[in-house]
Amino acid sequence: MKLNELDTVCIVGLGLLGGSVGMAVNRALGRVRRVGYSHRAVTRRRAVELGTVDMVCADLADAVGRAQFVILAVPVGTFPDLMRQMAEYLPDHCIVTDVGSTKALPARWARKFLPARVEFLGSHPMAGSEQRGVEFARDDLFDGANCIVTPTARTSRATLRFVGDFWRTLGMRVSHLGPAEHDRVLARISHLPHVLATALVNCSDEQQIALCGKGFLDTTRIASGPPGVWRDILMTNTTNSAAAIGRLIKELTRLQKALHTGNEKAIMRMLETAQKKRNNLVAEKLKRRELPG
Amino acid sequence: MKLNELDTVCIVGLGLLGGSVGMAVNRALGRVRRVGYSHRAVTRRRAVELGTVDMVCADLADAVGRAQFVILAVPVGTFPDLMRQMAEYLPDHCIVTDVGSTKALPARWARKFLPARVEFLGSHPMAGSEQRGVEFARDDLFDGANCIVTPTARTSRATLRFVGDFWRTLGMRVSHLGPAEHDRVLARISHLPHVLATALVNCSDEQQIALCGKGFLDTTRIASGPPGVWRDILMTNTTNSAAAIGRLIKELTRLQKALHTGNEKAIMRMLETAQKKRNNLVAEKLKRRELPG
Repeated sequence: MKLNELDTVCIVGLGLLGGSVGMAVNRALGRVRRVGYSHRAVTRRRAVELGTVDMVCADLADAVGRAQFVILAVPVGTFPDLMRQMAEYLPDHCIVTDVGSTKALPARWARKFLPARVEFLGSHPMAGSEQRGVEFARDDLFDGANCIVTPTARTSRATLRFVGDFWRTLGMRVSHLGPAEHDRVLARISHLPHVLATALVNCSDEQQIALCGKGFLDTTRIASGPPGVWRDILMTNTTNSAAAIGRLIKELTRLQKALHTGNEKAIMRMLETAQKKRNNLVAEKLKRRELPG
Repeated sequence: MKLNELDTVCIVGLGLLGGSVGMAVNRALGRVRRVGYSHRAVTRRRAVELGTVDMVCADLADAVGRAQFVILAVPVGTFPDLMRQMAEYLPDHCIVTDVGSTKALPARWARKFLPARVEFLGSHPMAGSEQRGVEFARDDLFDGANCIVTPTARTSRATLRFVGDFWRTLGMRVSHLGPAEHDRVLARISHLPHVLATALVNCSDEQQIALCGKGFLDTTRIASGPPGVWRDILMTNTTNSAAAIGRLIKELTRLQKALHTGNEKAIMRMLETAQKKRNNLVAEKLKRRELPG
């Protein structure tokens, strides 16, 4: 299937991400029919009121039954159940993707629970916020952000092109990583920052943090993210996340040691390295227009 | 001295903070004469052009010679030299404060290097950004932010009131902590986040972080801060900072262990605790108008 042949997309889960996919599809691919599924009646109603989808179904079989492209936008922990439930109703040659933050387990679940007549290819659109729910959905959530698509040896070229074209049309920069490699990298650049923000809040005393400034608030912003979503992310990427924590502890121990021994030069070197590295990162992101100038 | 008796203030150091103090004084206390000092000619010129002070001196003795109130707005590491240099030129009954981020060592240096005929009382206005230099000075930098004033047993009531009134007039919320207690608390809520952001950047691989999203960027924002300033902060608060790192490592180790053993409930509890605690903090800051609504 080519993107211009897409007639009906089904979005399973109508939270911030699912709702935003629907709105972005409407903006970029207005002719495509958008069917939404949510198990909550109030979400189904709001999703239609807000224009995130054209119609909603309370029944998963109805929702996916006529879609050529199904997007799972629910917490990763619910994938096995949903995949089992939808398996027999998916049309032949249907393409299934997801927007979850870990990719190795979902790929394994897809092989196990989805029929061979459909093709699964994982996606990780790296957009979102600490906010949650369809109320926060926006049609520009994906503009300029990265999307990592995670092909395996089984992925067909046509599907790889279709899914990549889909996200690019929604405004994203698309790159490819295998599911296992994706999870290793994301443990470092996404799951570790979350764990870190959580640990920083938890090791602080409420009376003390009341005095904090902007630095503490920014460093811990992501700790306000939904615990259920992050539990799922961490629990589906335990080994890599634990290894990333280990590497961070090593780095912190180096800093601690330099403080204990009053090694001013070592401290300065670590501060300078981090500043330079982060400034390069920001410059690169600005150049690629991933950040507002 | 009462605040309405203040005639001339001297700002030693005309960077982001010193320049902003000058502009905020102009806004709030327009009648007060502002004398600035910087050892760099280009900074002196820009400071006047930008209206941060009324006049500048290249000579520290000239700058402080007629001031009733002197504000050190230079890196903490330069305090001993500057205090020694200005000591004999400070007028009788002059009040000296600073805007440094650590308070125990500066208080000790003041006792050692400043004459008994002046009074030193440390201040820590918790405002700023990762930007640096007089070009970024703003008259509203202090609006709604916290300022911790750090009296000792020697501090007179009059001086405590004067310095508190000064920062309040510039738009800050003022609280009091002893210098040692300040450094313990700030190690947790300010120096630790900086160390953490630095460690997170340093333990990441450049190619990998190129894929990062907004979470990583926010969590590491402060790592772009000036290394020299942060080296001084950490080197003047080594014991507390090392202890704070130790506490964080403990918390990270708990998370790591929960991941290793697949203890989903423990992970969920830690994520929920952090989310709740941070949301309470943000709600409290909004209520006190320390954050834009």
